[in-house]
Amino acid sequence: MTFTSGYGEVDTMFSRRLRRLTPYVPGEQPREGTYIKLNSNENPYPPCPGIQRYLAAADAGELRLYPDPVSNNLRRAIAGHYGIPADMVFVGNGSDEILSFAFYGFFDSFKGPLLFPEYTYSFYPVYCAFYDVDYRKVPLKPDFTVDLDGCIGLVETCGVIFPNPNAPTGIALTIEEIDGFLHRYPRDRVVVIDEAYIDFGGVSALSLLDRYPNLAVVHTFSKSRSLAGIRLGFAMSNPPVVRALTTVKDSFNSYPVNKLTQRIGEIALREDDYYRNVSRKIIKTRERFSSAAVSKGWEVLPSSANFVFMRKPGTTGRTIYEGLKSEGILVRHFGITGIDAFVRVTIGTDEEMDILLKAMGKKW
Amino acid sequence: MTFTSGYGEVDTMFSRRLRRLTPYVPGEQPREGTYIKLNSNENPYPPCPGIQRYLAAADAGELRLYPDPVSNNLRRAIAGHYGIPADMVFVGNGSDEILSFAFYGFFDSFKGPLLFPEYTYSFYPVYCAFYDVDYRKVPLKPDFTVDLDGCIGLVETCGVIFPNPNAPTGIALTIEEIDGFLHRYPRDRVVVIDEAYIDFGGVSALSLLDRYPNLAVVHTFSKSRSLAGIRLGFAMSNPPVVRALTTVKDSFNSYPVNKLTQRIGEIALREDDYYRNVSRKIIKTRERFSSAAVSKGWEVLPSSANFVFMRKPGTTGRTIYEGLKSEGILVRHFGITGIDAFVRVTIGTDEEMDILLKAMGKKW
Repeated sequence: MTFTSGYGEVDTMFSRRLRRLTPYVPGEQPREGTYIKLNSNENPYPPCPGIQRYLAAADAGELRLYPDPVSNNLRRAIAGHYGIPADMVFVGNGSDEILSFAFYGFFDSFKGPLLFPEYTYSFYPVYCAFYDVDYRKVPLKPDFTVDLDGCIGLVETCGVIFPNPNAPTGIALTIEEIDGFLHRYPRDRVVVIDEAYIDFGGVSALSLLDRYPNLAVVHTFSKSRSLAGIRLGFAMSNPPVVRALTTVKDSFNSYPVNKLTQRIGEIALREDDYYRNVSRKIIKTRERFSSAAVSKGWEVLPSSANFVFMRKPGTTGRTIYEGLKSEGILVRHFGITGIDAFVRVTIGTDEEMDILLKAMGKKW
Repeated sequence: MTFTSGYGEVDTMFSRRLRRLTPYVPGEQPREGTYIKLNSNENPYPPCPGIQRYLAAADAGELRLYPDPVSNNLRRAIAGHYGIPADMVFVGNGSDEILSFAFYGFFDSFKGPLLFPEYTYSFYPVYCAFYDVDYRKVPLKPDFTVDLDGCIGLVETCGVIFPNPNAPTGIALTIEEIDGFLHRYPRDRVVVIDEAYIDFGGVSALSLLDRYPNLAVVHTFSKSRSLAGIRLGFAMSNPPVVRALTTVKDSFNSYPVNKLTQRIGEIALREDDYYRNVSRKIIKTRERFSSAAVSKGWEVLPSSANFVFMRKPGTTGRTIYEGLKSEGILVRHFGITGIDAFVRVTIGTDEEMDILLKAMGKKW
């Protein structure tokens, strides 16, 4: 889509940058309670109990002052949780903002195109358009796994970004595969691994930061920590990379993370047992649901995330999406050649997945 | 300042964009209670009582879901408050984020440089560096007012941005002056008026939106609404301009305003009487403080904001800043030729300003 204001005569008011944009389209956000919402990979369980207690006792008077612009307490809490120094942590207004800053600060096509998987988080090409970064898509392997070999040596590149587990497939790479790739990839090009879904079964590349100065790992509080509503993400990398992200932030918006979000993030880190239990429940539901779907003749890619990517041979993805919507269940369909047959289904509660299985059985 | 990572060998990891950045430096944010904090133009009074009640009763469970990406309820509340349609309202993560989006979407040097006042909000040149926008500073008049005539006809320009009241001077332009300027300025170049401080005595240009398709007015909840901690700002303009800002947002971060901030913003708009009273108190304190300072031999520029810009003939601004800091009072000093003698002092409570007056009397 090319931007048009709809008012031809005022188009000249805007910048040439604006005209090259193709905005990201997030999953539908219907009014709460309208649908069983399995389309945005939100967590079906509430945030940890300490957050409710914090809100009940919070002092609104503190809101008159600006937040700490560099979120020191929260960064220390994250650092403590993951066993790294605080100068290896950067926080932002959702991991999307951090990814945007990373594209600005790291990826520059004068060194070559950016590489990312052909089927992946659809915000990556949007950021490329936003900052005028050339990119090349690396095809997935026939089994839909990310092809790291395809990111090596074909062309001079300015960096690589991929989610692990990948979205929308849900398939994870092993830490050995990632290590092998980083070992062969140039150290003066940044590799961003978007680990939004890592807590649902993948192994984080965090342990590789010691050996690769060019590695940045991005996490979010939106998925395993049930906090999509507060907008909080963080990156972990070596101090020069964190300083680069901080320089970008301070040239864009000095205070991107508000006071309530900073405090809620700290509390979420303290109640790790609660969240480990939630993730275990979601994994168990995912495995149970996947087996049931396979036994009904569906193909389900092996997921290490809180969603599954699945198709029913003989039925189009759009038919599945629309059929389920008519049954009050919202899933995500990407009308993209090559994955058009699939729908992406967020793992909800056991009760929600049973309703879905029933609808699937009824329709197909 | 040029960005250097401090690690020469890894500088090549970063983009050329990063190297041109000179980040904004916000006012010091000391630990609460350490100083009388008159350096960031925060409101000395707490937010309206409904916000405390909202937090006490808020359901943390809702935070598991993403917020409304376009903040419809909040935008409707703002629209209702100002008597305009909701498609004339854009909201963002603080007015700083909205200004950043405006620079991206509106200002493009291929049409000529952007113009802004010589002494003004110091984030404007930072945004210019961020998006590679050329700019020209328009000198203030000898009485420190913004020179709108200086923004007309000298060169082809890609737009104009200025705060009204201006910062750090606090001096407001009249609505007639702004109308006269807009009347003569090309309609196909956007004019952004940053009205962060408008509720402390200026007249908003909102009423001019009907006549000027190229006008955008930016407001914040951080100042008159005592909510710097939640990060919320909004722009009001004609629908094509709002659509342009939305396109920029959706190419950067789909959900920039979190759930709690959206709800708190709605509540703040409902309790307008409370805030009108707060602004009246601050104006009264400002006038009392300014008179007292003048009677002690200080020069105080005529302010329509919640701060004053002042100097003491014979004393440098840095001396004043340091002298007051040693007395436990934090004010803002800009080490910039031309305004180096001044300090910017936020209007606090009557009690805080009395302590400041006493310190001023003791020191100078």
